[in-house]
Amino acid sequence: MDEAGRQAILAQLKFDRFAAGLGIEVIALDDGFARCRMTIRPDMLNSVDIPHGGCIFTLADMAFAAACNSHGTVALALHVDITFYASAPAGCVLFAEAKEIYLGRKTSEYDIRVTTEDGRLIAAARGLAYRKSDPYPPRK
Amino acid sequence: MDEAGRQAILAQLKFDRFAAGLGIEVIALDDGFARCRMTIRPDMLNSVDIPHGGCIFTLADMAFAAACNSHGTVALALHVDITFYASAPAGCVLFAEAKEIYLGRKTSEYDIRVTTEDGRLIAAARGLAYRKSDPYPPRK
Amino acid sequence: MDEAGRQAILAQLKFDRFAAGLGIEVIALDDGFARCRMTIRPDMLNSVDIPHGGCIFTLADMAFAAACNSHGTVALALHVDITFYASAPAGCVLFAEAKEIYLGRKTSEYDIRVTTEDGRLIAAARGLAYRKSDPYPPRK
Amino acid sequence: MDEAGRQAILAQLKFDRFAAGLGIEVIALDDGFARCRMTIRPDMLNSVDIPHGGCIFTLADMAFAAACNSHGTVALALHVDITFYASAPAGCVLFAEAKEIYLGRKTSEYDIRVTTEDGRLIAAARGLAYRKSDPYPPRK
Repeated sequence: MDEAGRQAILAQLKFDRFAAGLGIEVIALDDGFARCRMTIRPDMLNSVDIPHGGCIFTLADMAFAAACNSHGTVALALHVDITFYASAPAGCVLFAEAKEIYLGRKTSEYDIRVTTEDGRLIAAARGLAYRKSDPYPPRK
Repeated sequence: MDEAGRQAILAQLKFDRFAAGLGIEVIALDDGFARCRMTIRPDMLNSVDIPHGGCIFTLADMAFAAACNSHGTVALALHVDITFYASAPAGCVLFAEAKEIYLGRKTSEYDIRVTTEDGRLIAAARGLAYRKSDPYPPRK
Repeated sequence: MDEAGRQAILAQLKFDRFAAGLGIEVIALDDGFARCRMTIRPDMLNSVDIPHGGCIFTLADMAFAAACNSHGTVALALHVDITFYASAPAGCVLFAEAKEIYLGRKTSEYDIRVTTEDGRLIAAARGLAYRKSDPYPPRK
Repeated sequence: MDEAGRQAILAQLKFDRFAAGLGIEVIALDDGFARCRMTIRPDMLNSVDIPHGGCIFTLADMAFAAACNSHGTVALALHVDITFYASAPAGCVLFAEAKEIYLGRKTSEYDIRVTTEDGRLIAAARGLAYRKSDPYPPRK
């Protein structure tokens, strides 16, 4: 992945309005790899005052999306599974890292870890993507 | 589930700030069962202009949470897996229905379907919960 | 599914040597649906004297395979997830039932339940298949 | 893990009759880690002449079982998910390696890779175990 390609993909990922609304940033991107960051906010808590599984999933899913689109063609999430190990308080900064474990012609798969700044494991996910031939970023 | 118990649980679920921020409503609740509704908003779209997997997951997860807390004790999501079948445009109203398929002493499991108003399947999930003995709603 | 098509598929499924070795029978087959039976044998037990997860999975997977090949084209298992709820003693007869929940052009998905004769849930699985265009049964 | 503990666990794992019938050997064992080997036999093929998903799963599950019982207490498979990437011919030797990614009081989780001798990825699984307090190997 050259620097121009990386910047083009990072620029396109900024059009993700759901991730932007949650303050998720893509802080590293390479072929089949991405790292994202999100700070747990009070408006991300659920009815028992811990971060909603949905916001943890979204952070993991964003790392997955960045990693599977890193090859320059559109890939869509087909299946994701996630295990939740621990909670984190509001104000806590979380990281999600997605690593490609398989890259086929039609599908690819990623291991994703969600951790705190000091490396405590919050959740682990696996994402299976369906690879299309359309370019990413999409042509206007 | 008597009506007072249902109302107490529904009232507690309204403290879920993440679900509230996405406009998710719990529109039906019974023992081991819940149905939720969410309208896809422009701020839920991702970088290729389809609803972010994270918002679809959150809708499914909310139905799961309501269903697994319906027994009056706290249950936490342990594992969720989700398959995405189709997309839906902004403005589309989605429903998630969670049905209990297993209720054990320590764990319970739910089948969750996300559909459009006319019944088109958008995603299907399965959620495995870890059941605690703490009451739900939590005592103040 | 007409009777000739059903018989052709059932005949082909008998070439499954792994299922045959475990005594798994396909006892019902329809479009997107299959039901299989297997008796737990002493040689299926693991090191703590309960049926090995692998034999329960294989029973579920066989119902999945029969159901996803029922449309007359080859479908291959892409992803399967399974939750184990309870054990069953040697001699116990188990059933697996696979029901299609989604049929797309390239993929299809199935809910699979493994139960005892009296309906106790032993395991639940979900299988995602990748659909090829090759005929099933394969032409010689 | 000391050598006596390792030998006691390896000896107990040999009582797994299902794994033994498939010729599965546990070739490495450590705290939260196991590596197993199995040769694909003609009687493991399915109706389209590729290894049955059930035998690949069983190999992965055996590595998972060895790894999650390695701490000297009984752990039972709660949930496993597996993605199949490629096939392998009869006669091919496969390896499954399970690595612990999370060890909690009640649950633990493992990443499992199934590969050929030359490192080609055949399948990847994740296993979530429920940890009991009973000793492993069980006392007679």
